[in-house]
Amino acid sequence: MYWEKEIETMDREQLTQLQSKRLQATVLQAAKTSYYKKLFDKLHIQPEKISTLKDLQNIPPTTKEDLRSGFPYGFLATPLEQVVRLHSSSGTTGVPTVIYHTAADIDSWSNLVARSLYGVGVRKNDIFQNMMSYGLFTGGLGMHYGAEKIGTLVIPIAAGNSKRQIWFLKNFQTTVTHIIPSYALLLSNLIKSEGLDSSQDLNLKIMLIGAEPHSEETRQRIEELYQSKAFNSYGLSEMNGPGVAFECAYQNGLHVWEDAYILEIVNPKTLEPCPAGELGEMILTTLSRQATPILRYRTKDLAYWIDEPCPCGRTHYRISRIQGRTDDMFIYHGVNIFPIQIDKVLMNNPEVGSNYLIILERKDLRDTMKVEIEIKPELFIGDLPKLERLRERIQAEIRSETLVTPEIILVEPGTLPTTEGKAVRVVDKRQL
Amino acid sequence: MYWEKEIETMDREQLTQLQSKRLQATVLQAAKTSYYKKLFDKLHIQPEKISTLKDLQNIPPTTKEDLRSGFPYGFLATPLEQVVRLHSSSGTTGVPTVIYHTAADIDSWSNLVARSLYGVGVRKNDIFQNMMSYGLFTGGLGMHYGAEKIGTLVIPIAAGNSKRQIWFLKNFQTTVTHIIPSYALLLSNLIKSEGLDSSQDLNLKIMLIGAEPHSEETRQRIEELYQSKAFNSYGLSEMNGPGVAFECAYQNGLHVWEDAYILEIVNPKTLEPCPAGELGEMILTTLSRQATPILRYRTKDLAYWIDEPCPCGRTHYRISRIQGRTDDMFIYHGVNIFPIQIDKVLMNNPEVGSNYLIILERKDLRDTMKVEIEIKPELFIGDLPKLERLRERIQAEIRSETLVTPEIILVEPGTLPTTEGKAVRVVDKRQL
Ligand SMILES: [Zn+2]
Ligand SMILES: [Zn+2]
Repeated sequence: MYWEKEIETMDREQLTQLQSKRLQATVLQAAKTSYYKKLFDKLHIQPEKISTLKDLQNIPPTTKEDLRSGFPYGFLATPLEQVVRLHSSSGTTGVPTVIYHTAADIDSWSNLVARSLYGVGVRKNDIFQNMMSYGLFTGGLGMHYGAEKIGTLVIPIAAGNSKRQIWFLKNFQTTVTHIIPSYALLLSNLIKSEGLDSSQDLNLKIMLIGAEPHSEETRQRIEELYQSKAFNSYGLSEMNGPGVAFECAYQNGLHVWEDAYILEIVNPKTLEPCPAGELGEMILTTLSRQATPILRYRTKDLAYWIDEPCPCGRTHYRISRIQGRTDDMFIYHGVNIFPIQIDKVLMNNPEVGSNYLIILERKDLRDTMKVEIEIKPELFIGDLPKLERLRERIQAEIRSETLVTPEIILVEPGTLPTTEGKAVRVVDKRQL
Repeated sequence: MYWEKEIETMDREQLTQLQSKRLQATVLQAAKTSYYKKLFDKLHIQPEKISTLKDLQNIPPTTKEDLRSGFPYGFLATPLEQVVRLHSSSGTTGVPTVIYHTAADIDSWSNLVARSLYGVGVRKNDIFQNMMSYGLFTGGLGMHYGAEKIGTLVIPIAAGNSKRQIWFLKNFQTTVTHIIPSYALLLSNLIKSEGLDSSQDLNLKIMLIGAEPHSEETRQRIEELYQSKAFNSYGLSEMNGPGVAFECAYQNGLHVWEDAYILEIVNPKTLEPCPAGELGEMILTTLSRQATPILRYRTKDLAYWIDEPCPCGRTHYRISRIQGRTDDMFIYHGVNIFPIQIDKVLMNNPEVGSNYLIILERKDLRDTMKVEIEIKPELFIGDLPKLERLRERIQAEIRSETLVTPEIILVEPGTLPTTEGKAVRVVDKRQL
């Protein structure tokens, strides 16, 4: 059940000691980079004196813009010759963020992924179809190396080509997959249209879903569609990629691998720590990275601490699922809204299909919000009063969740735009 | 200079002994697969008695269709639980060919790739931009694992997105790349159109070119464009992928890694062995594979033996570059033609640009052949008599090389269709 029992169930005091020891090493390592050296000099920080979370909090957070400004080698702490890999966020235009890895970095990252996979039941005799993009994006290669450490049969099929995905799922009776949740919803439609029943003809037992925030209701929808367990995976390329935090078999939040990361959750405005249960921005510090140590990275991801021991016996603290990103929050009529709030309402309605789109527009100086929702094919034949009741119910539920009242448009399955990558859930035309 | 001196420079007698020992183990391993067990039973072959090339030749060759017919597990020699990876030819429709690998298989494959890369000068302090597709295709992950074994910095950028490729080439001063030769030609145009000079602004020193047959003239063209060495890499997914045969620094043919493969070159019709210098089909037998041993695989690739010791000191026999595939040969007016013959003529003309297309059609029961050729932009302004002389010269050279006289059409740069994968050089509309 445990990949590394000693570390996973280490008592808190020992774990804190381990963190402290690794933090010291990390800060000294960071002092070798030109970025942190300059920062420490400027603020008169003595790296050898930093060993506790309290000490760490004297260092100002590192942002994505800082990483960018350090391109190419401002955050590199080892000779380039020791680097065996780089990954990079493709993201938007301009300079990408680049993270370098030594062989030891790749090994410890792979180990964190193996620990996560093993914890939810992935074993040597599983067949693992990795549907994430391979390349500079960390979701593909990151999971690949972790699964390889376990000795699972990896099908490195990468993203896209849904027909081929289905062919492999069926013909190899794939037991484990790594998949973007919105794509899992779309793929189930295609599976159906190929005349297959995802709960009968396929053999999925474990689905690792990540790379985009999603609601508990989306997870339950996926589990029902595939008759498989779905586990929430969290990571970001700046912190390696997958393997930062992962659900255990109890599916009650994500254990943060605290031997490898220090997590703070803070109020994004004041940077004050949030108590358990209070939503805040995650700030992460690497504890076992040689080439690119990063101190207090502002992830822009929002979650809260869960202050209860987990029945699985792991002592690493848990966080809630990601509730959104400070980036993808939008303001409508003065109200802050995260797309995941809408996701939650929609996926809780069995009449709703696999795709929806939130559209914000400005008409005659007034903002409008419209939610286009694909509904199940069997509902689309006739019975207009029934559809009208559904429309009104969804509208009321969204109002109750978000305090705003969008226009609701029910559309036929397959009419909204799709992608084989991360879903685009919000189109905000107000800034255009 | 050598990755494994002992094996690479082993004297022929010892090498033959090593092959014989490994052949015995491979045939016994193959006897564990349902396909070969049935074949051996049917033909009364006693696997324990096969230890020489002569013995081996009593076994009928295995074809791609045989591999397909054995789907999914007919060629699997180990318990599925020991398999850690599969690769698959996407190829055409229908059942793909699937090759399984144990952890030891991946390791010995990676070692062959590392040996090939090290032999042409790739070192720990190089920066290696791997432009091949990552996933089921073996070109991406195969080279990736080999380069990682050396400890090179791997940029796993994968195929496509030329602008990003150029950005990385420039900003990381990439020293080594793995690239499809036709794409290297196209990319150099794009580099120019971004205002860069590939010989000045880039830092490429070693280009590994493979995945499609190409002429010596194409190689020289690439070397000139990038002011870099370009080495010919040969492999196919059924035999792992890259790392079957590779040029050494002398660029005088490809050393076949005979400790890992037995190569026969035969007349494709009679299956009689070809003497050195005579073009024939390559038939390959794996010598160090556990999960999917394959005996006498008909590659459909055409090459000839080179019967001369190599000044590099490696004793593994050399073959010519691939001269074509039995598959891509076409017959025009009764003459057998390989696209590489046209490639050779065109790339030898400095006026010719980076792209061309051979089009075969049937008009009024008569076959026609037309070669559309992009020429360099500076030639396209005026001077019609000069263009006409160029057209006539190319036509004469193709006639002298192939004995047929195609229509030659000179077109502007950028007008012919392009792809970021393997180039399509022949469009045969006669069968449509
Ligand atoms: Zn737990
Ligand atoms: Zn040589």
